[in-house]
Amino acid sequence: MDNQYICLRVNDAQKEVIRVFRNNSRFALPVTDDKGVLLGIVTLDDVLRLSEKEDTREIQKIGGSEALDEPYTTISFGSLIKKRAGWLIILFLGEMLTATAMGHFEGEISKAVVLALFIPLIISSGGNSGSQASSIIIRAMALGEIGFKDWWRVMRREILSGVVLGTILGIVGFLRITIWHEFNWYDYGIHWFLVAITVFFSLIGVVLWGTISGSMLPLVLKKLGADPAASSAPFVATLVDVTGLVIYFSVAFVVMRGTLL
Amino acid sequence: MDNQYICLRVNDAQKEVIRVFRNNSRFALPVTDDKGVLLGIVTLDDVLRLSEKEDTREIQKIGGSEALDEPYTTISFGSLIKKRAGWLIILFLGEMLTATAMGHFEGEISKAVVLALFIPLIISSGGNSGSQASSIIIRAMALGEIGFKDWWRVMRREILSGVVLGTILGIVGFLRITIWHEFNWYDYGIHWFLVAITVFFSLIGVVLWGTISGSMLPLVLKKLGADPAASSAPFVATLVDVTGLVIYFSVAFVVMRGTLL
Repeated sequence: MDNQYICLRVNDAQKEVIRVFRNNSRFALPVTDDKGVLLGIVTLDDVLRLSEKEDTREIQKIGGSEALDEPYTTISFGSLIKKRAGWLIILFLGEMLTATAMGHFEGEISKAVVLALFIPLIISSGGNSGSQASSIIIRAMALGEIGFKDWWRVMRREILSGVVLGTILGIVGFLRITIWHEFNWYDYGIHWFLVAITVFFSLIGVVLWGTISGSMLPLVLKKLGADPAASSAPFVATLVDVTGLVIYFSVAFVVMRGTLL
Repeated sequence: MDNQYICLRVNDAQKEVIRVFRNNSRFALPVTDDKGVLLGIVTLDDVLRLSEKEDTREIQKIGGSEALDEPYTTISFGSLIKKRAGWLIILFLGEMLTATAMGHFEGEISKAVVLALFIPLIISSGGNSGSQASSIIIRAMALGEIGFKDWWRVMRREILSGVVLGTILGIVGFLRITIWHEFNWYDYGIHWFLVAITVFFSLIGVVLWGTISGSMLPLVLKKLGADPAASSAPFVATLVDVTGLVIYFSVAFVVMRGTLL
């Protein structure tokens, strides 16, 4: 490739600069303004630092905090709290919907307390599969491997992944209840089998929903002009928790109508 | 600094190589064996690719999956499932302890179903604060800002963060119950005030525990010779979920003894 055609414009975003260097083995590139007038050069060691800084921001966001923009060792306590409290409060307000959802199911829970036992297990499985999907997709997007135009290809793949992963966890959950029942390690009541069936199907639904939301959210955020990394592991988990409860109690209602519920 | 003294040994770990380049503005460095015999050179553009690959692995691990080691677009469906299923199953088995813990509290739940309503809210707050802490610490460790020797400095800071962040969420949670009660949006029963108090103190305890475990786990893993990034957001959340339940029901027991429990 002819060297003179790889010039960076001053308004190129940082991520774009990193990508240009990755795809062209050059140690330095000229920077021009929109008219092609030379402004200076960017060297590869600037880019290494830049790339590392970008990745740091990305990792901190995936963890559910604002990017600190300062080393952990030197950031002031006040700034550290400010960067973390914002998202924690937003997530907490979102997660409050679980209390609302649970309120709707209070009748079911008091009729079948055994259902409450598996609430954390079910909803966390959705959160975990969603965290996996979102971090994988966020990273693939940052590396330029996929963009919004690929949403259907990603969705198809994640639907399949969700069904397979959900079925695996569903089987483990089903076995857990069956084995604990057989060996009398815990008394899930005479309707233990219905509980096991409920857990099995809920896990498929919740994990599927987790992988779909986790993979689509970064793409949608990008499309809306936001940073895909904002669809952090905790954010996806919160989103999936509320839906997870609804899926669980809906499945329970279908499976247990006329018996426990 | 004299150029000839910055030589990379063949057994230097990838992260170490990246660090050497970051701290010394060089475009290429010689590689020697242990006897100082020149084997070849490493150039900065190799390092940019290496650094990006390392960060990709780190991000995928923080999301709770194995590192894919291949682009999302080209990895086979079988490999994709294999890399994700392992951790999902391990997390699921760990999360099963919540069902065991909930089993112990089944009596409390059936006496005070209102307690069940806040279970997802309480435990997820611990998971969220833990995810934040672990990703911040994992990144600071990868950049060489902190190591195991700094554990006490980190712990002190995270204890303080946990108390402050927990108190903020505790106040929001307390207000939520009080406001919903005052406006008759939901009937938490005659003991609504005790419920609010329980939620307040539980949130402080759970968020504090989340930040402590989230920040200490990467340091401990490093000390044990494992990859700090394995203390992923879902891993920390799972760990904190079980403890969160114990904290919540213990606080409830103290606050509500003689009334609801």
